[in-house]
Amino acid sequence: MATRVLCLLLALIRSPSPSQSFSLPFESAENCTKKQWFDISQMICVPCGPHQHASDDATITAADARLYTNNANIFFVDADEPGSPFHPAEPVNLQQELLKAEVFLGGRWLFEELSDLSGRVLVDGPHQAVTQDGWNCIMCPIGAIIDNNGRCQCPSGQILGLLGSLDGSTGGLCFLNRPKDLTSSVTTDIVYGQGLKVSSAWFATHLKASAIACLRFANLTACQAVGNMCVMIMNSIDMVTTPNDACTLYDTIFKKTVSLGNTHSIPSWRINLPWLYFDTQYGFGNRLIDQEPFQTIYHFKSSKHMELQFILAKYDAQGFFLKWEKATGGTLQLCPDTLPRLNIAYIFGVTYQQSCTLSVSKLLSKYDKNHFYDIYILYKGEDGEDKLRAVAIRNLNLQYNGKFVNRDKMMNTWYLTRRIFLVDTLSGREMNLDSQPKAIRVASHIKISVILVPNTLQGKVIPPMMTISYTDIQIQNPEQQTVSVSFSVEYQMDLITAFQNTKIALGFLSGLSAIYSMIKTATWKKRVGSPMIDIPTVLKFLLFYAGDLANTFFIVTFGTGIYWLIFFKGQRVLSVLLPTPNQEIHFISSVASAFTLKFIQLLHKLGNQLTVDIFFIDWERPKGKIVKSIAGGGDIKTAPAPVSIWRTYFVANEWNNIQTIRKINPIFQLLTVIFFLEIAGFANLATMDPYSKLTSSAESSAIPPSRILRFGVATTIWLLVGFMQIIFCASIYERFVEDRISQFIDVCSVSNISVIIFSHKCFGYYIHGRSVHGHSDTNMEEMNLNLKREAENLCGQRGLVPNTEIETFQIFITSKLREQYDKIREPLNWIRSPGHLVNNAEDAVEQRMKAYNTTNRFLGSFIDHALRDMDYIVQDKLLLERIMGMELHEPIDKTIFYNDEKLSFTDILYYGNEETLLIFDMLFFCIVDLATQNFFFASFLTYVQQKIFQFIRNAAGRKNLAAKTLIDERFLL
Amino acid sequence: MATRVLCLLLALIRSPSPSQSFSLPFESAENCTKKQWFDISQMICVPCGPHQHASDDATITAADARLYTNNANIFFVDADEPGSPFHPAEPVNLQQELLKAEVFLGGRWLFEELSDLSGRVLVDGPHQAVTQDGWNCIMCPIGAIIDNNGRCQCPSGQILGLLGSLDGSTGGLCFLNRPKDLTSSVTTDIVYGQGLKVSSAWFATHLKASAIACLRFANLTACQAVGNMCVMIMNSIDMVTTPNDACTLYDTIFKKTVSLGNTHSIPSWRINLPWLYFDTQYGFGNRLIDQEPFQTIYHFKSSKHMELQFILAKYDAQGFFLKWEKATGGTLQLCPDTLPRLNIAYIFGVTYQQSCTLSVSKLLSKYDKNHFYDIYILYKGEDGEDKLRAVAIRNLNLQYNGKFVNRDKMMNTWYLTRRIFLVDTLSGREMNLDSQPKAIRVASHIKISVILVPNTLQGKVIPPMMTISYTDIQIQNPEQQTVSVSFSVEYQMDLITAFQNTKIALGFLSGLSAIYSMIKTATWKKRVGSPMIDIPTVLKFLLFYAGDLANTFFIVTFGTGIYWLIFFKGQRVLSVLLPTPNQEIHFISSVASAFTLKFIQLLHKLGNQLTVDIFFIDWERPKGKIVKSIAGGGDIKTAPAPVSIWRTYFVANEWNNIQTIRKINPIFQLLTVIFFLEIAGFANLATMDPYSKLTSSAESSAIPPSRILRFGVATTIWLLVGFMQIIFCASIYERFVEDRISQFIDVCSVSNISVIIFSHKCFGYYIHGRSVHGHSDTNMEEMNLNLKREAENLCGQRGLVPNTEIETFQIFITSKLREQYDKIREPLNWIRSPGHLVNNAEDAVEQRMKAYNTTNRFLGSFIDHALRDMDYIVQDKLLLERIMGMELHEPIDKTIFYNDEKLSFTDILYYGNEETLLIFDMLFFCIVDLATQNFFFASFLTYVQQKIFQFIRNAAGRKNLAAKTLIDERFLL
Repeated sequence: MATRVLCLLLALIRSPSPSQSFSLPFESAENCTKKQWFDISQMICVPCGPHQHASDDATITAADARLYTNNANIFFVDADEPGSPFHPAEPVNLQQELLKAEVFLGGRWLFEELSDLSGRVLVDGPHQAVTQDGWNCIMCPIGAIIDNNGRCQCPSGQILGLLGSLDGSTGGLCFLNRPKDLTSSVTTDIVYGQGLKVSSAWFATHLKASAIACLRFANLTACQAVGNMCVMIMNSIDMVTTPNDACTLYDTIFKKTVSLGNTHSIPSWRINLPWLYFDTQYGFGNRLIDQEPFQTIYHFKSSKHMELQFILAKYDAQGFFLKWEKATGGTLQLCPDTLPRLNIAYIFGVTYQQSCTLSVSKLLSKYDKNHFYDIYILYKGEDGEDKLRAVAIRNLNLQYNGKFVNRDKMMNTWYLTRRIFLVDTLSGREMNLDSQPKAIRVASHIKISVILVPNTLQGKVIPPMMTISYTDIQIQNPEQQTVSVSFSVEYQMDLITAFQNTKIALGFLSGLSAIYSMIKTATWKKRVGSPMIDIPTVLKFLLFYAGDLANTFFIVTFGTGIYWLIFFKGQRVLSVLLPTPNQEIHFISSVASAFTLKFIQLLHKLGNQLTVDIFFIDWERPKGKIVKSIAGGGDIKTAPAPVSIWRTYFVANEWNNIQTIRKINPIFQLLTVIFFLEIAGFANLATMDPYSKLTSSAESSAIPPSRILRFGVATTIWLLVGFMQIIFCASIYERFVEDRISQFIDVCSVSNISVIIFSHKCFGYYIHGRSVHGHSDTNMEEMNLNLKREAENLCGQRGLVPNTEIETFQIFITSKLREQYDKIREPLNWIRSPGHLVNNAEDAVEQRMKAYNTTNRFLGSFIDHALRDMDYIVQDKLLLERIMGMELHEPIDKTIFYNDEKLSFTDILYYGNEETLLIFDMLFFCIVDLATQNFFFASFLTYVQQKIFQFIRNAAGRKNLAAKTLIDERFLL
Repeated sequence: MATRVLCLLLALIRSPSPSQSFSLPFESAENCTKKQWFDISQMICVPCGPHQHASDDATITAADARLYTNNANIFFVDADEPGSPFHPAEPVNLQQELLKAEVFLGGRWLFEELSDLSGRVLVDGPHQAVTQDGWNCIMCPIGAIIDNNGRCQCPSGQILGLLGSLDGSTGGLCFLNRPKDLTSSVTTDIVYGQGLKVSSAWFATHLKASAIACLRFANLTACQAVGNMCVMIMNSIDMVTTPNDACTLYDTIFKKTVSLGNTHSIPSWRINLPWLYFDTQYGFGNRLIDQEPFQTIYHFKSSKHMELQFILAKYDAQGFFLKWEKATGGTLQLCPDTLPRLNIAYIFGVTYQQSCTLSVSKLLSKYDKNHFYDIYILYKGEDGEDKLRAVAIRNLNLQYNGKFVNRDKMMNTWYLTRRIFLVDTLSGREMNLDSQPKAIRVASHIKISVILVPNTLQGKVIPPMMTISYTDIQIQNPEQQTVSVSFSVEYQMDLITAFQNTKIALGFLSGLSAIYSMIKTATWKKRVGSPMIDIPTVLKFLLFYAGDLANTFFIVTFGTGIYWLIFFKGQRVLSVLLPTPNQEIHFISSVASAFTLKFIQLLHKLGNQLTVDIFFIDWERPKGKIVKSIAGGGDIKTAPAPVSIWRTYFVANEWNNIQTIRKINPIFQLLTVIFFLEIAGFANLATMDPYSKLTSSAESSAIPPSRILRFGVATTIWLLVGFMQIIFCASIYERFVEDRISQFIDVCSVSNISVIIFSHKCFGYYIHGRSVHGHSDTNMEEMNLNLKREAENLCGQRGLVPNTEIETFQIFITSKLREQYDKIREPLNWIRSPGHLVNNAEDAVEQRMKAYNTTNRFLGSFIDHALRDMDYIVQDKLLLERIMGMELHEPIDKTIFYNDEKLSFTDILYYGNEETLLIFDMLFFCIVDLATQNFFFASFLTYVQQKIFQFIRNAAGRKNLAAKTLIDERFLL
């Protein structure tokens, strides 16, 4: 008794941590001194009693001296000198100190049970007998006697408990069957999944005996065995329907031994009993996050990875403590794998996933013995000593009063436990312990959750929790049956702040976009020359808003991606953790929104581009009259020399060819992005571990990629490559190799053809292509001469306004001009719409030609200031107008030509919408990748998408061009 | 003695296979009956002697009855009734049958050695003593006695051998030290790599004792121990310099025990001794391939894989036989891995490679005990019984008289052995057996070679051979030291026939190509109009030959790839095996040759394309005279109306744009090939296993890919995709979407411009583009009218010959015409060459214009039959001419126009050389892949290559076009 109290006091002194810290010092049998033994219930070294010393493995205490009686005399043998002959015992106070005596009778040793005053057998020593076959020495169970044949036997009137074998290789216990402490009948049926009920041979043999041995003798092993049986029935407690099953028996013992006190000040850990329930009561799951965090500051250095050091106390089904075992090496992972791939699970900060399907027959053979684990995490205490923190288990199969309380999402309904097993092939054996089990239980899904302390940047975590769920398998045809198992490690932090920040950013930017879209809509209203706010206006606003909102979503998601990439991958001390797949859903939906809206914007832009009004103004006038015939006597008939249409064909063809050129090469973009991601290995940055490596090792395939990081890496690379390409295009390619847009303007000038484009009703672009030589429709000789003269600066400048060089303009025309223009071109609509009566095809052609010639003349006159009531002025845009992209003055009397050296007419080509296309392609790429996790496939689909859009844009653009300029499609090659 | 003879007879009866079959029945201790024991030397069950029965594990024979003497009386205890009290022995012939007696003296058992007449201790039984600490029962070594303290002790005058420990947990032997049989001094130094000499504690303790125990008592364990020591020194034998080391001692024992006979009729396997050398003598490596093949027919079914069942006899260093162990499960593989990935090594037909770097400290801790393996392969004998075939070991570290005979490539110098170990951490311990070794030996490279029986289609193999090489590591800093190890399985067949077939095919096709190239050269000679065979002719022949030889090499390599793909991957019964990486070298060099030659061909073609002569003939004549001015009184001055050059610009521009269009889309080609290879998984067909799966499993990464198969798969897919694209292009795209070549011919017709191209001096192409309307240089109105008239068939046909439609021709012109043409264009060369005096730039321009106009007029007249002395005829090509691609008639008087509906003018564009480009791209792709084993990277580089060539072709083609047609480059956009 004194010993016990001392132990208790020692335990109290040793663990001065706050009441709910669930921590204890880490000690193992090797740490114990010669005068200490290792208490497998409390997990600490406990001083031996007087005249006692620890056995070699320190698991039990042996008497310092052995007492023997030779019928009458008592001998006392010093255990430190085993070879020494028997000699009479020194005087010893049998009443107080004698814990055990071994009686030497007739050359054989008999054991007689003696216990201390509390009724507990505290010491167990070797006493050998002969095995059944008579050739080996064995230990008899406690309380057994050796009969005349030299065999172990329980004294008559006693029953054998625990191991149930008199072979005695691992123990056992004889005791009187006096069922006064506990109920006489116990529940030994086990209910598995799908209602399969098995009458368990193991429970039938051991439950009652162990419970009695635990309660009456406080036999440590027996207590552990009772606990194991409770774990085998999933720690489920139902006082009403099953009042006498393993867990309720445990509960009863727990309550009856309240006087013994608790281990390490943990209320639910009774001295001598295993620690089965994390809390004494159901419904304290909340306490988990209130736990004191580890003082360890977790940091990430590439040279030395920090480890989550899980330490498992391993017991066998009988309740023997086998050893402290590390979790590394695949102790808890049922799926086989290489050692490095198994161990990476425990590197701090590495999200880990492993799953596989196992054959039941293999499980049966590999796990023919049940092992039970109490899981601790090893850490350094404040004074640098090794300490343990208990890991709470959330067993999804636990039933409390018939309800699966741990499956609830609310923590306060949880009933957390302590002990787990991986595979239970024992409890399901029905007939005897060697038969094949009728059912087995497999810990099919194990998840370790590590939670960062909220609002800390100091890299502190609270002790991890383990969620476990078991699958029950009824054994029918084990060769064919399989079970899928998984093991994962997850790191979580409270992301509410991050989510809120994201929401604020989204809200703010959406507001800005709305304003911006409104400005755009207003500009649009002005340009189409309609002041009313009607349904099309609202629609237009929505379309503009779609585009701007797409950018907003993109900026936020891109920012999020970059944020995690930098802060998660770049952190040296743990400060942020990645969102888990569940937490990623917000992000994914944002990306999807960005993509959808961008898609709408793209369609909108394409729609605009494919409906622009365009006309090529031919400035060429007939060179003179051509002599048609000289009729009769010198009567000269002349006709104006026809102006060749081929220059127009040439320009139109060129215009057709620059419809889908881009500032970047999309194929090069795709290939380079793929190169960086997959071949240079940047895709490896997307793994859910805080280490930044570009090379993938064999282990890394066990680390799942984060979709946020994938998005972040892919978009960053995409934008960087795109940006580099645009810079290269602008600063090198277009300057030194080829600039198709400038070439086009050049061609206009050389061919004496202007281009007028109406992107809106009253707004458009004008490229002034009037030849400085007056004529261009001529032979090669003259053309070359012209070019040469221009090269030598022998002629005027090309600009619209004399002595200027500006050839490109934005035009904001008066409604009057537009009405006139429409009027001239009205016949074309007649041709297209079947309602109007056009007599025959020839009529139609004639109408077209007429419309073409009239338009040509009308627009030519307009540019030449020849129309008095429809004049125009040329001016620069104001800075504010440039910034807002809006014209502040509306043309009332005169059309306004804004100088436009930025070539903004490319807005109606692919060329001027590079950002939209780039971002759309990127979002498309990312969306496919988020769905398939395959960059290659994404790039393949992106290519196909680009080709489809390009084909549509080209084909429809060509049709529109032919329709508007009246040029036969056959010349648009 | 009688027992021995019986055993021998039995062994003879049981293995009636031919003398050199090296096979034996597969028996294990479990197979033995109660009256048999398992002879670990012969690996068979051997009957026990009279009054004997096998021990439980059948490794030794126990006496049926135990004999004890009680000082004087002899007791005889029946072992089958161990519990029975001692009773006097029945009469027994001690002289003949008594093998061992255990003497019961004063309550203690003493052992007295007795042996049979040959001096061998045949039986070993339990006789227990007390351990040093006095608390356990142990077995004393054979020959030991138990002293008064109950401890084991060798009798005085005897020495202790084998284990050297009196703890006796695993045996040992006491014997008199009478060195009459063997030399008194033995070599116990071991020489490791880099000359490190270690005085081995293990050898010092056990070599002599074991050798004596083996020779004198024929102690099986001792004999095995001697063998193990010989294996530890690499089976090296040097009679001169080290006459007393382990291997020479083994050899001495082997020679001295010749009277005992051999096991299983194998000459090098002495009864009682381990089988160390595959043959009795050095230099019989050749016999390996003469071995009788397995009768098993190896086949491949996806459902059930056939396995190479290696069975290992496992011994510990002391010589105890531990068990039969399967090679599966990573027994021989030092690199850790998952079980399926380890076991795939033994699936028949699967080439396997595994390598890794191991830490020496881990090896030291994991392999602290040496194990030795005799390797057998398990197979079914003719009568269905399990049999074993010995696997020969080629130890690259073995030295025979100081020479590394096994490193020679010639088999007849090899000295094959039998036993191996994986890691030897024992022999290098210098001071005592618990110290850290000074050096360790690691089996760093293990290769199993399976050889197909030559000229068989029956799937038979001869027994595999294992090549092993050891690395010696001097232990300095085990934590830092590493060793790289590998394990591979290789399948070989004699490929001489295949190589010969390849060579024949290559030779034959090369011959054909030479003929074909000669025809081409002849054609070329005709076309350039030069009859002499000069150096350019030879060069030209070589260039043509390069192209044809490239095709030859490609066909042969492609055929080879396809062959292996079909026959290796498709076989159900083993009939062919893949070439090993060494054997692949021929193939690789063929591919490289094909690529290089194709590259030369491509450059040649590009060179031709970039130097063609081309001219656009403008048919347009001035519409009339234009009224220039009316000077004075009615004097009308007229000038011809200039013909606009813009049609020529339009056509030239279009011609420029079709230079590099192709029948296939190269990007789509690359992406589709990658899709099939990597995403659809066809690349997984390239693994060196005979199973065809498109999905890659975790195991398959241990199977190396075959470069031949990679080439086969890649080329097949490339050609198929290319072929599909060409068909799609011809039958759908060009018909329904766009046919740029036809469009070009159309444009020629519409614009009234013909194209004449001289690809050779006297040979070229003509596209007749004369407008059927006479004029084309007109306004839109007339153009549209013309088009309409043509659509309504109101005008003539476009053909050159009236009432025909053929617009494209091959032309074979007379030298006269060409001379005239060159003469006209001579001034152009003056301009270009600085030697000629051209006064100023204006002069140059004038010259150009003059040349242009003259050429235009000259060629126009020629086509118009206006040149009397340079007329032409139009005719069809003969079938033979078409087939040979050669003109049989040379144009003497008249130029010949061959109708060419096949549009062969595309030969000077990319378009007409699709096959060359496709095959070049493919070879480029394959070459990069062969070098990097990365299809993605290959496709990336192929894209870059295509872009570079396209850019060069476009830029240089544009320059050439501008130079030849005199059109300013600025109009070629």
